[in-house]
Amino acid sequence: MFVAINYITCESSYIARFKELFMNRAHAIDRLAGFISMQVLEPKAEAEPYLVVSQWNSEDAFNGWLKSPEFVEGHRRAFADMKAAKESGSTPPMHSKFVTYSVLTD
Amino acid sequence: MFVAINYITCESSYIARFKELFMNRAHAIDRLAGFISMQVLEPKAEAEPYLVVSQWNSEDAFNGWLKSPEFVEGHRRAFADMKAAKESGSTPPMHSKFVTYSVLTD
Repeated sequence: MFVAINYITCESSYIARFKELFMNRAHAIDRLAGFISMQVLEPKAEAEPYLVVSQWNSEDAFNGWLKSPEFVEGHRRAFADMKAAKESGSTPPMHSKFVTYSVLTD
Repeated sequence: MFVAINYITCESSYIARFKELFMNRAHAIDRLAGFISMQVLEPKAEAEPYLVVSQWNSEDAFNGWLKSPEFVEGHRRAFADMKAAKESGSTPPMHSKFVTYSVLTD
């Protein structure tokens, strides 16, 4: 089993919108072969990033998602927000970084 | 639902032992009321920490575990390794940091 975590740091002015996007997410990722589940984790401490944890049957399944139309569909609103910030010369509303893992044990 | 992640950075000389401890873990935590599941994640990139992700019914259940005999029992071998390193003046074999989360959505 394979796990990918997207560590996302939001500008404080963007947090409400960020949460709204996930609370009514597109569920495009759910259609991918090899996708098992995801969980969005909100840190108790403000200084910590949000985590989007996705579980996959294999690393190939995860890499397939990154190149899929579902990846674009699932991120459409967030990508639009990022683009609008860039075009207006504003600070990007968030930064993110994927880290990948194998499951050692449970 | 409540999630705690222990971010653990190991000295490279300790990684084999660290993995061994988890592969035949004590399962003491499994007996705690409110414990749901745990997962130990091994990073694909060497520079990243290991993650011990535990899921709980509530933050109180997690805090109860921290003060329980099961916490001591579950960490007995690791604590002994840490103590031995300290007594011999060696570098600690690992560092760890708990970060806690609520589940925003899945």
